[in-house]
Amino acid sequence: MSLVLYELCGADSARCFSPYAWRVRMALLHKGLAFERRPTPFTKIAQIAPEVSRTVPVLVDGDKVLSESWDIACYLEDTYPDRPSLFGGEGGRAAARLIESWANASISGRIVRMVVRDIHDILAPEDQVYFRTTREERFGATLEEVQADRDERLADLATALLPMHLMLKNQPFIGGDAPLHTDYLLFGTLQWARVSSPFQMVDPASPVGQWFERCLDLYDGHARATPAAAA
Amino acid sequence: MSLVLYELCGADSARCFSPYAWRVRMALLHKGLAFERRPTPFTKIAQIAPEVSRTVPVLVDGDKVLSESWDIACYLEDTYPDRPSLFGGEGGRAAARLIESWANASISGRIVRMVVRDIHDILAPEDQVYFRTTREERFGATLEEVQADRDERLADLATALLPMHLMLKNQPFIGGDAPLHTDYLLFGTLQWARVSSPFQMVDPASPVGQWFERCLDLYDGHARATPAAAA
Repeated sequence: MSLVLYELCGADSARCFSPYAWRVRMALLHKGLAFERRPTPFTKIAQIAPEVSRTVPVLVDGDKVLSESWDIACYLEDTYPDRPSLFGGEGGRAAARLIESWANASISGRIVRMVVRDIHDILAPEDQVYFRTTREERFGATLEEVQADRDERLADLATALLPMHLMLKNQPFIGGDAPLHTDYLLFGTLQWARVSSPFQMVDPASPVGQWFERCLDLYDGHARATPAAAA
Repeated sequence: MSLVLYELCGADSARCFSPYAWRVRMALLHKGLAFERRPTPFTKIAQIAPEVSRTVPVLVDGDKVLSESWDIACYLEDTYPDRPSLFGGEGGRAAARLIESWANASISGRIVRMVVRDIHDILAPEDQVYFRTTREERFGATLEEVQADRDERLADLATALLPMHLMLKNQPFIGGDAPLHTDYLLFGTLQWARVSSPFQMVDPASPVGQWFERCLDLYDGHARATPAAAA
């Protein structure tokens, strides 16, 4: 086995939560490629491949070391063209860039303010210090303050997810009848929330919640095997 | 010439503004298909093809009468497969459904509240009565009230367009190096605003504004030939 995926984990190495690493993990499963996982806590990331990246995911394929989840997905698509396509053609690849930006800016940007203190709580002590310092500087507020009024922001998140709600009236996946990388882009964001926080932000019975459950079922329930954060 | 496109127009029949009709018009140009346009005011739409649709666009192709802009785009893609593809493959078609829902729910839904009174002003008198009655009932407010605080809502629109802003760091069109139907989905929405209202909601010098200008330049500046609403 030559593929190695470095992911981000909490104090429990089974609790991998980086949305970007989840996108790559689902892409590897989609391609049917065997890979070894190396869960890595925040304060160890800089040691993985400091000449290549200071963030996860990092994918090692033989003598190649790759970073940035988008670049890794494109690498997998182009390097393993005989395996199931991640994009369903060049139009799909191009459109996926807008959907990636939507998932990041319009969805992750809202979710981080609902889970940032909960992420802190699943980290090992030395990672908690790093995380609190960097994130409180970024937000200009304590983690507790950022997350405080999350109940009041649920309606705003539902509005931001309305495009998914509408699309799901027509097809079961963003990829159409079956998932493509576009699904994994949003899935990674919601799996990040599921694994790091007990806060329920999407009703499991809603169309978006049911789509998420379908994604958790993929590849023999692979993503479901990482447990949801306990309340 | 067998293709006929029924569009929505104001008192001036040159002022076609329906976002959905613009999506179809750009798709026809993309396919390189000749077509005749039939500008139609609100109160005449019901007479176009009442057995098929009570909304525009309506496309007549020989003995076929088609409605719904999404269905028409798919019809064109499937009926004229030897002409330039609108979707760039099945992954692109599937992803376009999410991008369509995003353009409708996240962008058009914001823009309508900035232009609804201005749309009224470009209509013929009998259409103004219809438009005011139906829209004021929908919004539960006068057209003037709906549009009143639009300056204060510009920042919210910019935030909703952030996914485009980020995507454009990587490629010039949603379709990649060249436009696809995904571009026309959002273009139709912004062209609707341009043709019906003098209110400037996207800075022409911004990345999104520059992308919009590139779309106006397509097909010998076809969409630019419909003048922007005068202040």
